[in-house]
Amino acid sequence: MLKKVLIANRGEIAVRIVRACAELGIRSVAIYTEPDRYGLHVKRADEAYSLGEDPLAGYLDPARIVSLALETGCDAIHPGYGFLSENDRIAQLCEQRGLAFVGPKSSVILKMGDKTQARDSMRAAGVPVTPGSEGNLENQDEALQLADEIGYPVMLKATSGGGGRGIRRCDTPEELKNQYPRVISEATKAFGSAEVFLEKCIVNPRHIEMQVLADSQGNAIHLFERDCSIQRRNQKLIEIAPSPQLTPEQRQYIGGLAVKAAEAVGYENAGTVEFLLSGNEVYFMEMNTRVQVEHTITEAITGIDIVQEQLRIASGLPLSYRQEDVSFRGYALQFRINAEDPKNDFLPSFGRITHYYAPGGPGVRVDTAIYTGYEIPPYYDSMCLKLVVWALTWDEVIARGKRALDDMRLHGITTTASYYQQILEHPDFRAGRFNTSFVPDHPELLNYSTKRHPSAVALAIAATIAAHTGW
Amino acid sequence: MLKKVLIANRGEIAVRIVRACAELGIRSVAIYTEPDRYGLHVKRADEAYSLGEDPLAGYLDPARIVSLALETGCDAIHPGYGFLSENDRIAQLCEQRGLAFVGPKSSVILKMGDKTQARDSMRAAGVPVTPGSEGNLENQDEALQLADEIGYPVMLKATSGGGGRGIRRCDTPEELKNQYPRVISEATKAFGSAEVFLEKCIVNPRHIEMQVLADSQGNAIHLFERDCSIQRRNQKLIEIAPSPQLTPEQRQYIGGLAVKAAEAVGYENAGTVEFLLSGNEVYFMEMNTRVQVEHTITEAITGIDIVQEQLRIASGLPLSYRQEDVSFRGYALQFRINAEDPKNDFLPSFGRITHYYAPGGPGVRVDTAIYTGYEIPPYYDSMCLKLVVWALTWDEVIARGKRALDDMRLHGITTTASYYQQILEHPDFRAGRFNTSFVPDHPELLNYSTKRHPSAVALAIAATIAAHTGW
Repeated sequence: MLKKVLIANRGEIAVRIVRACAELGIRSVAIYTEPDRYGLHVKRADEAYSLGEDPLAGYLDPARIVSLALETGCDAIHPGYGFLSENDRIAQLCEQRGLAFVGPKSSVILKMGDKTQARDSMRAAGVPVTPGSEGNLENQDEALQLADEIGYPVMLKATSGGGGRGIRRCDTPEELKNQYPRVISEATKAFGSAEVFLEKCIVNPRHIEMQVLADSQGNAIHLFERDCSIQRRNQKLIEIAPSPQLTPEQRQYIGGLAVKAAEAVGYENAGTVEFLLSGNEVYFMEMNTRVQVEHTITEAITGIDIVQEQLRIASGLPLSYRQEDVSFRGYALQFRINAEDPKNDFLPSFGRITHYYAPGGPGVRVDTAIYTGYEIPPYYDSMCLKLVVWALTWDEVIARGKRALDDMRLHGITTTASYYQQILEHPDFRAGRFNTSFVPDHPELLNYSTKRHPSAVALAIAATIAAHTGW
Repeated sequence: MLKKVLIANRGEIAVRIVRACAELGIRSVAIYTEPDRYGLHVKRADEAYSLGEDPLAGYLDPARIVSLALETGCDAIHPGYGFLSENDRIAQLCEQRGLAFVGPKSSVILKMGDKTQARDSMRAAGVPVTPGSEGNLENQDEALQLADEIGYPVMLKATSGGGGRGIRRCDTPEELKNQYPRVISEATKAFGSAEVFLEKCIVNPRHIEMQVLADSQGNAIHLFERDCSIQRRNQKLIEIAPSPQLTPEQRQYIGGLAVKAAEAVGYENAGTVEFLLSGNEVYFMEMNTRVQVEHTITEAITGIDIVQEQLRIASGLPLSYRQEDVSFRGYALQFRINAEDPKNDFLPSFGRITHYYAPGGPGVRVDTAIYTGYEIPPYYDSMCLKLVVWALTWDEVIARGKRALDDMRLHGITTTASYYQQILEHPDFRAGRFNTSFVPDHPELLNYSTKRHPSAVALAIAATIAAHTGW
């Protein structure tokens, strides 16, 4: 088993990894940049090292992080999600310098990060992909011709893109002509690659993703699906496991595709295979070669600690479970509590948390790095807390979600919590009927009234004192 | 379904019941006495009413509580545990005034509260009881004669006792002679009854209790067992579900006894049948006719919300589950975090919580009514937080317990948390081998070092401001 792990991340996922390390008896090393000096991951890890004043540079520097891991006697690096988690260079550096990288081989990261290579691999393995390019597009004319063949609307995508960026929908040849140079320009800037490809646009699909685990001995299993259809501009808001809108046959079929996908590319560690569902059609979308934000809900229904399993796999151990050992029970929802104002176009709402009280009781899990007095830095992700609820039935989990959202106190910033209460009330959501158009189709859910907190000033003083004292 | 429930309790169990009501769409009414004005149950319930200055009188006044329930339009009273939860008079008042009492009929409370009546009922139903009195003892001579027959050591017990009080172990006839008048005197003072009985003392038993649920339609099921052997002077400290030291056959046998016990007395609602195990022998100890402090761990392994089920049963609904629907998964531990100093003979340590941070992440549940700035009143139970951890395996749940205890911050008072860390390290505990003598047999576990918190004054100021502002 690994002895000491450097966590190349911040925020709630860094705290999550500290906890998994602690439970496995692994020593944890945090890194931080100066805006994160008071971060919970710094307080909770066994050791913590500053990587300088710049808010981001330290978290994005593979060479420096690998060197620090070696200097501090670590035998592995866990990248979390975001930042360097899908960067093949840090994986490669780990391979070269004798560190375990808690993720797949660098060659697999590279292959699955290149969307056209990933599509080609999947097609070759017999995993259905959306109709579209084989390889990258040569030029605009090829794009127009292909779009004519497969029919509009189409999606023009950056080959190296991800996380919902570098994607444009085109409904007509004119739009395709307009967007083509824009996506190329955006992709070059954001991902350092001008390569683009084209896919048929699946209109109003459901977003279903399968959690997979694979070890270095060639075993691969899936841990069932998550339904992430409740999203806004490709950003997931509420995730659900299992999907209330899959039959057992669909579940088994898609699970089998995900395992096939992982095996086809020699995948190791935890990964997620994302699919789009339209009617009975299933299309491979992409594979995320890292732990996902929403791994929590799969943990809730299967009982398996995915981050611990990642660390075991990176230690060279075989999977703790065979496919037939894995079962799921009940339903779980994850609410991404973002420091954003839904009524103001989801504008970020950074600032100091003047009062935080964690919801508790049965079936409630919280993953967060915030605390009373913590000031959310403006440089990072606006997601500040993951609230996960679990219950035996769909109706119960919705009631529990409402109760837990209501139970939580988070003052000083505006969050998406009240907006999620509205979603939970919607009859289509309650009936388990929704696809990726749910959020854009229901702007009326933004018409809720907000309570203003009465004694904000006193709380702010108390919070500031508390932030810089205890722990 | 009930519409509005008065919660005749305080602290974490009152908050627990508020949450169950909220998830079922039932309105909740809190009561409080003045020391509890800032109690979390008062903040979280839909309505709250003061019952005066005296810390206890209001919580212990059946007539006043029943009147208040009627005045505020409630259709039921949930008594929680402790206080009036096993008081047949409040149950009877509810029956007379048309309120649902969330518990069994008053006649059943009366019968099971009388330990000799309970023993007689169980014996008649074919549930094994420890050798000892049939009915109450007439006098000391009868006690001495009976003890000679069944053999020493024996337990002399108050018939109306409970919660570990009014009990004496006697190893010789001389001790029995000495203790006889003392137990009678104690029983008269504490329970208003001079009746006592005698049982064979089961030396170093395991304490195994079965959770049962029974509805008004005559259906009764069990939700498996809890192992509460880790106790000190009959006070449970760490509870475990399922027991790591039962075979499936023992589990099935004892579960069957518990259902038989419930059926024999016409039990309704949630209850717990407590047994002592010695080798392969199983003896009925008592039945608690209320929800237990440790119901949480049964919820963790079965997924069933016991308090919601209580409210459904009190609404006249049938059980949501048949015996064959109920299964359990993994292991759960509950740590009773008490405001006590283990190194000082567990002396209560009441005072202001200067800093509280709830542990989080996978498999962690917290039930508490404390918050940063809350002052624990000296008039009540010293238990201030229930930390429940769950994991798929015994080894994992121990590791998770250690991590979660470590993760929690609770400054300003001394608690039992560090002591529990020592218990988790003990090889016998880790091997799942322990009985009720574990705690007294291991006084060396009290030799741990305590950390002192550096900035207690600043935290205390911040906490005081926070306590009286937000929410």
